[in-house]
Amino acid sequence: MSQTQLNPLLEGHAAPPILVVLSGPSGVGKDSILMRMRDIGFPFHFVVTATSRPMRPGERDGYDYHFVSEAQFSEMIAAGDLLEWAEVYGHYKGIPKSEVRQALQSGRDVILRIDVQGASTIKQLAPDAVFVFLAPGSFDELRNRLQWRRTESPDQMERRLEMAHQEMAALDEFDYVVINREDHLDDAVGQIRAIIVAEKHRVRPRRVSL
Amino acid sequence: MSQTQLNPLLEGHAAPPILVVLSGPSGVGKDSILMRMRDIGFPFHFVVTATSRPMRPGERDGYDYHFVSEAQFSEMIAAGDLLEWAEVYGHYKGIPKSEVRQALQSGRDVILRIDVQGASTIKQLAPDAVFVFLAPGSFDELRNRLQWRRTESPDQMERRLEMAHQEMAALDEFDYVVINREDHLDDAVGQIRAIIVAEKHRVRPRRVSL
Repeated sequence: MSQTQLNPLLEGHAAPPILVVLSGPSGVGKDSILMRMRDIGFPFHFVVTATSRPMRPGERDGYDYHFVSEAQFSEMIAAGDLLEWAEVYGHYKGIPKSEVRQALQSGRDVILRIDVQGASTIKQLAPDAVFVFLAPGSFDELRNRLQWRRTESPDQMERRLEMAHQEMAALDEFDYVVINREDHLDDAVGQIRAIIVAEKHRVRPRRVSL
Repeated sequence: MSQTQLNPLLEGHAAPPILVVLSGPSGVGKDSILMRMRDIGFPFHFVVTATSRPMRPGERDGYDYHFVSEAQFSEMIAAGDLLEWAEVYGHYKGIPKSEVRQALQSGRDVILRIDVQGASTIKQLAPDAVFVFLAPGSFDELRNRLQWRRTESPDQMERRLEMAHQEMAALDEFDYVVINREDHLDDAVGQIRAIIVAEKHRVRPRRVSL
């Protein structure tokens, strides 16, 4: 047994920083969960995704997303500035690499939200991240939420629901599943918090290098 | 991927029952932790250990321990009634097998406390249990706690402290480590609770068969 691999909590030091990847089908509530976590003061670095999609009402640039033009996004890809990027429903989304690295290197825990395909890419880059799949209470709930959001056309919505069914199959690659039931957001947030606390107490902590 | 192995939470059912094994050096506070968990209503079956050691002030038979004579204990061994047993510091301690099995079979989560050598035996019998190592804040704290307990002679105490040093090496076989700092019992209880919640949300739940 190598003592150096054991949890530094034992020596009175902090556990190494973790990278939490929060994923799940479109419309499942990843953004609401992250917003709540941020509001109640989770001591995490919340990675802001870059996107070329239009800002929705109430969203703030640099907080909800880095809203960039398609041209700017292409430059970021060319410069290798993105950990992962994808074209989703006609728009680009990507994770700024430097942000994640700098936060981890400074010892901060990091959380990022990403679609299911993106999570799969991150899994290859950082298998020691903590992968949390956010599942809907039911597909009816998912449909309701997408309808309520009113940002998709009926066609887009059906595509998203069909995609969600496919995405459930990717669950296998995840470590944890949390169900975001309608009107029970804080249950899901509490469960994610518990997962993070538990991960901090692993005898052999995960160590993410990116 | 076999869907049937996935967490039944996804289908709206309860996750399978877990067996939590709480271990750690003598004097680290396993009993205090369990008592607090029981008092605040953790929905667990708390396994009552059988022991041939004398009752300490404040302890209750059938609640803190099943207090039995050495002769009775020998009968339990002979009848195969114990999942695990050991002679520790001149007394016998053992885990009644039927109690653990029945609770798990009825779908209840089970928690048991056991010394470090015993945890190692349980690990072989039930590798899918959740192994939590309770560590002292420091060896000074452990010494203080043993002194405060006043149930050991100075010689016994030194033996226990020496044993505790050796027992720390067994940490490697555990899943989680929780530090029971003096005057911070509820921190440790909260961390154990988080570990349990996290374990319930594994995509592929552990399934204990005994």
